[in-house]
Amino acid sequence: MGGEDTKSLGEVEERRVTFTERELELDSGVTLNPVTIPYETYGRLSPERDNAILVCHALSGSARAGGSDGWWSDCIGPGKAFDTDRFFVICANVPGSCYGSSGPSSIDPATGAPYGLRFPVVTIGDMVAAQERLISHLGIDTLLCVAGGSMGGMQVLEWASRRPDRLRAAIPLATTARSSPMLIAFSEVGRQAIYADPNWLGGDYYANGRRPDAGLALARMIGHITYLSDRSMHAKFGRRLQDRARFGYEFDTEFQVESYLKYKGLSFTQRFDANSYLYVTKALDYFDLSTPGGLPAAFARSEHVRFLVVSFTSDWLYPSYHSKELVSALTAVGADVTYLDIESSWGHDAFLLEVDTMTRLLGSFVDRVAEEARL
Amino acid sequence: MGGEDTKSLGEVEERRVTFTERELELDSGVTLNPVTIPYETYGRLSPERDNAILVCHALSGSARAGGSDGWWSDCIGPGKAFDTDRFFVICANVPGSCYGSSGPSSIDPATGAPYGLRFPVVTIGDMVAAQERLISHLGIDTLLCVAGGSMGGMQVLEWASRRPDRLRAAIPLATTARSSPMLIAFSEVGRQAIYADPNWLGGDYYANGRRPDAGLALARMIGHITYLSDRSMHAKFGRRLQDRARFGYEFDTEFQVESYLKYKGLSFTQRFDANSYLYVTKALDYFDLSTPGGLPAAFARSEHVRFLVVSFTSDWLYPSYHSKELVSALTAVGADVTYLDIESSWGHDAFLLEVDTMTRLLGSFVDRVAEEARL
Repeated sequence: MGGEDTKSLGEVEERRVTFTERELELDSGVTLNPVTIPYETYGRLSPERDNAILVCHALSGSARAGGSDGWWSDCIGPGKAFDTDRFFVICANVPGSCYGSSGPSSIDPATGAPYGLRFPVVTIGDMVAAQERLISHLGIDTLLCVAGGSMGGMQVLEWASRRPDRLRAAIPLATTARSSPMLIAFSEVGRQAIYADPNWLGGDYYANGRRPDAGLALARMIGHITYLSDRSMHAKFGRRLQDRARFGYEFDTEFQVESYLKYKGLSFTQRFDANSYLYVTKALDYFDLSTPGGLPAAFARSEHVRFLVVSFTSDWLYPSYHSKELVSALTAVGADVTYLDIESSWGHDAFLLEVDTMTRLLGSFVDRVAEEARL
Repeated sequence: MGGEDTKSLGEVEERRVTFTERELELDSGVTLNPVTIPYETYGRLSPERDNAILVCHALSGSARAGGSDGWWSDCIGPGKAFDTDRFFVICANVPGSCYGSSGPSSIDPATGAPYGLRFPVVTIGDMVAAQERLISHLGIDTLLCVAGGSMGGMQVLEWASRRPDRLRAAIPLATTARSSPMLIAFSEVGRQAIYADPNWLGGDYYANGRRPDAGLALARMIGHITYLSDRSMHAKFGRRLQDRARFGYEFDTEFQVESYLKYKGLSFTQRFDANSYLYVTKALDYFDLSTPGGLPAAFARSEHVRFLVVSFTSDWLYPSYHSKELVSALTAVGADVTYLDIESSWGHDAFLLEVDTMTRLLGSFVDRVAEEARL
């Protein structure tokens, strides 16, 4: 089912589609009914249907990965790492999010009102299950590659663990196979900021005309600190003051770093839903491929998958040792792993900011995978 | 001026005193009038008044440093590092705080009502100026030593920079001479959490019967994450669930780390004032000894002071390189510096938790200083 909007932009064929599946059984045991999955594609699926690359977005992303304003437009396009002249790139919005997918702001068909917190909790596994339905719907048996960073990287690992038979290669970037207590802690303080907003109303604010923007902005400010690094904050802001020459000895915004965070928090409220923030952070917290049989057991059937694992030296939210543990597990099951711990000062954000390095790295890896697939 | 309460507890003489100074001119140019400084002392001042050690508390501390329930009782007492059989240990609550000192919850004599945000912004320099008045009041010309960690360490460095003529030795622990943009960022999100609480009312909540507890609790939760480390959180909590065997797929507190942070946040509201939290974090943010003439210039008159500088390898809020820069500046002016970067997994909290190491280290340093002073 679903509407379709196709346009040709220069040489790239872009499609924006909404796919609706009758139902999806979630990890929680609840059945979501129906589930709407907006997705975009860039390039053309080959007649053999063997040139598809699925890219998975992070916490606040949407299906809009490519095109002029996509979140990964540096890597998706003609001649880019995910070369749309050769590959068919797909990105779907995850369930629980607010960019067209089924989530807490969607209408619950049982009541005719927005779900709010009555929307079921979703996991990274549920996101991948939704993507798998979509891939089947598109008539694709095997993906050439699945790629993503941060929460997107978790989906990549879930794919490699859950349905390794349906992919040739996996690119998990700046991520982990097991959320750390520090990650959970930062998730929880962000959620508490939303709960504490008097406009949140237990999640039932949609009809109210007032949204919990203050709480969501604060959650995003906290998040932004964790995406940067001590060094990148020194470089970006230092101790410079904003629009003033000296201390005001007052509680106004005085330092540039304060001004930046407030701006980022405020602008986030114009594009994201507070309840969705609760759902996606909860999915992060639950993610743990290592149970019950250790981490190698999660990849017992993945030995044929080629992996490109990338971490960044200044990423303290997803420290490099997480990727090293992952590489160790993948190697233990005999998978072919390329691993790079990239020297970068940009912290967790590096996977989107280290453009030249990432373009070269992803491009040559995908080229090799395509060559082996005889594309 | 001021009341006094003396008691003998075993061998240690403890005194709790409130000292009131007529006025204090602050760095902002505002004159605070009057200023009340509660302090405690442990041990006896020698007839020569040359055995005094001033300890400076951190963000949420009080004058209660020693005794059975003091924040630094591991190091203050008979036979301990700050040996109360030999030394006279002093600790004063900083202005802006809420443990008896003049602060936003004090009564403004001009109006008869609590100051709220009309209380002037105070700096680390103002805290040290208040302590200096106290020291003079006690008839002490020269302190044997000034010691403290975190915000207490900033006061130590301010002492060494501002009045090096009045001290022999300085022990700055887990601190910096210049607050980083990351530190400012975490301060600001904590303040925003308080501002966003509907009970905060621009700081005028004292007469209201309802306090901005939710905002203060959230600020404290954020702070607590920064005092721990990735490694200590793994050790303390891992991914263990609190009072349940499996995921609930709901938004209750599920992980132990969430439960710990909520408990810490809640209990903080029972002992600290939200406005005071704004003031002490603002003092942190302003702290920068490096302007205008670089860091060595700040210690131009400190070459006779003996320094013990300590940082901790897992402290990412006050990373070791801050201490290394400090040591470099102190060495440049010819000061005698002992520096240790202690291997610890406890993060910023290590300066209070690495008891055995700290006791040995501080004890032998203070012994040497006392010996040189021919005590």
